[in-house]
This record gives sequence, C-alpha cells and structure tokens, in this order.
Amino acid sequence: MTSLKDHTQAGHGRVVISVDAMGGDSGPATIVAGISLSAKKNPNIDFLLHGPRDELEKLVAKRRVLDGRCEIRDAAGVVSMEDKPSQVMRHGKDTSMWSALDSVRDGDAKVAVSCGNTGALMALSMIRLRKLPGVNRPAIAILWPSRNPQGFNVMLDVGADIRADAQDLLQYALMGASYARNGLDLQRPRVGLLNVGTEEHKGRAELKEAYELIDSHREKGKFDFVGFVEGGDIPGDRCDVIVTDGFTGNVALKTGEGTAKLIGDLLREAFAYSPLSRLASLLALTSLRRLKKRIDPRRVNGGVFLGLNGTVVKSHGGADAMGVSSAVKLAFELAASGFGDRLAARVASAAMLAQDDAEAETGQKESDKP
Amino acid sequence: MTSLKDHTQAGHGRVVISVDAMGGDSGPATIVAGISLSAKKNPNIDFLLHGPRDELEKLVAKRRVLDGRCEIRDAAGVVSMEDKPSQVMRHGKDTSMWSALDSVRDGDAKVAVSCGNTGALMALSMIRLRKLPGVNRPAIAILWPSRNPQGFNVMLDVGADIRADAQDLLQYALMGASYARNGLDLQRPRVGLLNVGTEEHKGRAELKEAYELIDSHREKGKFDFVGFVEGGDIPGDRCDVIVTDGFTGNVALKTGEGTAKLIGDLLREAFAYSPLSRLASLLALTSLRRLKKRIDPRRVNGGVFLGLNGTVVKSHGGADAMGVSSAVKLAFELAASGFGDRLAARVASAAMLAQDDAEAETGQKESDKP
Repeated sequence: MTSLKDHTQAGHGRVVISVDAMGGDSGPATIVAGISLSAKKNPNIDFLLHGPRDELEKLVAKRRVLDGRCEIRDAAGVVSMEDKPSQVMRHGKDTSMWSALDSVRDGDAKVAVSCGNTGALMALSMIRLRKLPGVNRPAIAILWPSRNPQGFNVMLDVGADIRADAQDLLQYALMGASYARNGLDLQRPRVGLLNVGTEEHKGRAELKEAYELIDSHREKGKFDFVGFVEGGDIPGDRCDVIVTDGFTGNVALKTGEGTAKLIGDLLREAFAYSPLSRLASLLALTSLRRLKKRIDPRRVNGGVFLGLNGTVVKSHGGADAMGVSSAVKLAFELAASGFGDRLAARVASAAMLAQDDAEAETGQKESDKP
Repeated sequence: MTSLKDHTQAGHGRVVISVDAMGGDSGPATIVAGISLSAKKNPNIDFLLHGPRDELEKLVAKRRVLDGRCEIRDAAGVVSMEDKPSQVMRHGKDTSMWSALDSVRDGDAKVAVSCGNTGALMALSMIRLRKLPGVNRPAIAILWPSRNPQGFNVMLDVGADIRADAQDLLQYALMGASYARNGLDLQRPRVGLLNVGTEEHKGRAELKEAYELIDSHREKGKFDFVGFVEGGDIPGDRCDVIVTDGFTGNVALKTGEGTAKLIGDLLREAFAYSPLSRLASLLALTSLRRLKKRIDPRRVNGGVFLGLNGTVVKSHGGADAMGVSSAVKLAFELAASGFGDRLAARVASAAMLAQDDAEAETGQKESDKP
C-alpha cells in the first residue's frame, strides 16, 4: 500500500478525506463499499482509512477503484456505541476514531468522516482539534429536506450540547450562515431563531436576548434575519438556516425523521394491501422513487461539526454504502470549497467585532458618568 | 329556539357540548357545518353554540339535523388570532370564547370546544375554570399517529407553558396516563420522558429529577414507566404517553406536522409528474386514501387542556367542517367517559400521596436527628 502524500502534495486539485472505518453499525465492509462508490464517482478524492490494518487491507484489496487512492492507518481499538465519551477521552488513543481526527489535526487530511458514537466523536474532536478562537460551544449542523429552491435547510445545533445561551445562539447563526453559503451556495442566507411562536414577546428569556444579538449582527455576518420561526418552518421556505439549542434541535430532528419513516412504512403497507394496489404501486414506482430521492435521509447523510479547527462529518451509525458515500461527498465539497478556513475567519472577525462593541459600549458608559 | 336544559336533564344519556362558533379561520359557517356533521353521526350530542345570535340563527336554521339540538348563547365579541391573552382576560367578557367556557363552569355543558387563539383560550380557561387542586401548570395534550396498536400516542405539554419543572412533569405523566386510559382505552399506559438520549445519565438536571419522581409514582398512578425516550419514539411504539415541557413539545408537534405536510405535497407532485404517473395515482387512489385516513390530522383534531375544573378541546384554527366534527367527537368521548372527574380524582390523590410522602420523609429526618 503506497502513501498518498506525494500524490496529494503534487497538487493536482486532489482532496484527502480521512475515514474512520470502524464506527458503523454494519462494520468496515460497508464503509469500504461506501468509499469505493465515492471513488468511482469522483476521481479527485483520496482516502486515509483508519482501523485494524489486516482486516482493512483485505477489504480494500477487493476494490480495484481504491488502488493507490487509499492509505491505511493502523488502529487496533474501536469506539463502540456504548462507550462513554469520558472513557474514550481517557483510554481511546489506540482507536480508529482518534486516529482519524489526528490526521486532520496534523494536516494530512482536510476533513474526517465517522459513523461512530456521536458523543464520543464530539468529545474527542474538542480535545484533538480544539475549538476555534471565539467559539464557546461547537455545534452539529444538518441538512433538512425543505420547500426552498435549494431543496434543503440547515439546522443547528442538533445535539452537540444540550445548553445554549444567547451568545452561543449568535455563534450558531454565524456558523450556520457560513455553512449555507458554502454548502448550499446561498449568497445571503436567511436565518431564523426557533421558538414556539413568531411574535417578538414570546418564548424564553435567552431567546429574546439572542433575537437582539442576531439581529444586530446581520450586516457583519452577511445574512438576513427573519426573526422567530416555528417547528413547521424547519422543512419550510421562510428561512434557510434554523438556529436552536442542541436539546430542542435533537428532538426536532428525531421527531421529523421518525414521522417521515412512519409515513414511508405506512405508504408501503397501503400499497401492499390488495392485488390492485400492488399493481398501482408498480406503475407508481418511478413517482415514488422520485419522491424518495428527494427526501431520502441517506442522500443528506452527515451532520457537520462546526466551530473546531478542522471539519468533522458525522454519518448515521446505521448508514449503508450509499449513506457513507453521501457523507464522503459532503466532506469533499466542504474541503474543496475551503469552508473550514472561511468559517474560522468569519467567526474570528465576529468575535473581534463583538469585543470592539463591548469595549465601545464600556467606553460609552464610562463617558456617561458624571 | 328552545333551551336544551330540560331535554338534557331528563337524562337520556345525552351529552351537551359547548362550542365557540367564532374562533376558526374560516368563520362560523364552517363551525356550524362541523357540528351538523357530528349531529348526523351521533344522535346523543346536543350543542350550546356561542356567538352573535342573528348570524348564528341563520346558519343553524339551514341545518335540519340541528333542529331542537342546538341552543344559541348570544355573544357579540370575538377573540382574534392577534389578540394578546392579557387583553382578552381584561376585556373579553362579551366574547364567544368567554361564554363557551362559562357554560362549562356553570355546569350547562360538560366540555367546551374552540378553534380560537390558543394562548387566549388557555389564559381564559385558567381564570374561568381554575386549576384542579394539586395542579401547578395545566398542559395541552394531543394525539399523534403512531406505530402502536391503538394508532395514536398521547404527547403533552405541547404549548400551554414554555417551562416545566420536575414536579410539573410528574403531573403531566399522571394526567397523560389518565387521558390515555380514557381516550385510548389503555389499561396501563406506558409513559416515556422525552430527552436527547435514552441513557439515564443524559440530559438536563430537571429531567433526571423528573425521571426519579415519575418512576416512584408508577404504582400509584397505574402506569408503566419506560424511562427516557427520544424524538423518534413520539410516532413509535416504545410508549403510549410522551411527557415533555411545552416548549419542546410545541416544536416537536409543529416539526412533525410540517414534515408530514411536506411529504404529502411532494407525493402529490411526484404523481402529477407524467401521464403514466397520473394513471398510477388513479389506480393508487384507494391506497393513498387509506394512508391519508391513518395520518390525516383532521381525524385527530383537538388538543385537550388538562388540569382544569372542566375539559376544553382546542381545535386547529384552520380546521374544516370535518376537523371541527372530529374535535366534537373527542369532546363527546371525554364527556361520556366521565374523564374530567376521574382525572381530578387521580391528580388529587397523587398530590395527597406526595404530601404524605413529604411529611413521612420530614418525620423520618426529624427522627434521624440525634
């Protein structure tokens, strides 16, 4: 197995993606099948694959498309879904997850992809990659099928942290707008703050405070602010970026996924009901496929960790090869667009501006004194 | 127009439902069409209809099925969707909403139904009906299409109050279990507490406290406790009753509704795409109708206000005649099962038991003193 380094440093516009082979529910074979799919579709991706060398070498050798494009980094340990983040932080040095993150930290890859335990991945990302200057709480952002022309909205935080104060929500707005600009190609994303009503007087105290803060950063952050939005706007077209705390965002995400899955299953049942309905379903197959393609979560698979020195894409634990491939595609797009550097610059400048504001305000108050 | 009173007091198993004719987005004609539908289906319902007498008399006169079964209570004022709850509480005495609630307070009707402004309806309900002894915060409970055999799960609170402490969450568990027993005919409902993970150590502090409280009231409350559940369990089959605060519940409800509506619209688009897909949709019509019947929100229209001296059903503001009729059906079932009295008894006994526990505990601590 050759190293990718020379290949990459030759600068043919190639992008290296670091992949944790051991996180998924269905094992490394599915991960290798997924990266093979990506390698076939996109000749500009190379891979760093992390996990037990013997096992991975066998899997990679079967895929001709990966020949010379996949370097294996040996890591014997595996982070399981049951492992507590604190355990992994203390004893996880030999794991494939740790190795994948360190390759981003060391600059060998632009973005890391893992299907593993979300809590452990976030905890490890925070200690190995560290938070961006100016960021208090990193966030996980996801893409959600919506009525907007771009087909998706960004929602964050969906579970990095169960708390978020007004300042955190402002940072989520800045990071979410940056993600929408780079990931969805929107010049001036519209940001909405999730609440239980759209009236300004409604909701929790920290939300009213965040409303003012986000509103006052519209120009600096190059986004529009539509104010409070409701749960129904997450798949809607009132805004492109939905900002909320990780508790509410996680519940909303899982409720939406669960509801979509229930409807899909009931649709299948309805079409299996009688011979006539089975015939109808055959005729309707292309229509149903068109719908499925539009809302299939495997096609938008990947939560992105924002606010770190390096980008991490968290794929669903239960992702199949296509799901893994779509997470890799997202990672490639973010790496190729230089998203990480742009986001860092945006957050740092906002943090500096906020500091300037605070100082100016203090100065003001000083001068107000009699 | 004759009074219903004698009719009702004669005790033919008839139930009087009080209906606010003025709350809905599409005006009183839709409400009258809705109660006519209910009157046709169910000969045991009579109505008290609240609103401007002249307007309502004309509408009711057109419906022969309402002849002698619908008494009009004149009320000139209307609560609009824009009215703030505080305004309505001060100046709403002449409104149809106030009149509808007062008829329940005075014992003329068992349950009130309104399509009006939720915030105003809850605020008025609290001052006109008052909270049940032992209840700190009333809650709004809804039925959600689910994978369970009964077809629906109960979720509360979906928006009565944006806050809920551990004690409130316990009361929601008791009230939700009582609703599931009476509304869904479940002997021993399974209660789940909504969180971002199912592990016991996860989530906010008040949730850990509520976990212990709810767990310790399983036997007294005659329910099972499955512990923490996630957003995906709201339409799932792990539990029958989902307990959460009104902020999270409202976001989850609206996210689920919005996602279901988006899928429905995309399904329609997919089937309108080509001549073949339109043919398929004709053949699939009965299958799609079967699905729609299963998840149509109009068929489960009605949030129930729990924790008051009297039951209030809040119908969707945008409900059509069928939606209004389904809210009336829910009101009838709750009234006929004596739900209000049973709930009151359950909550009062739990409150008393909690007090006993607290006294016992204090006694214990006293005796522990050296």
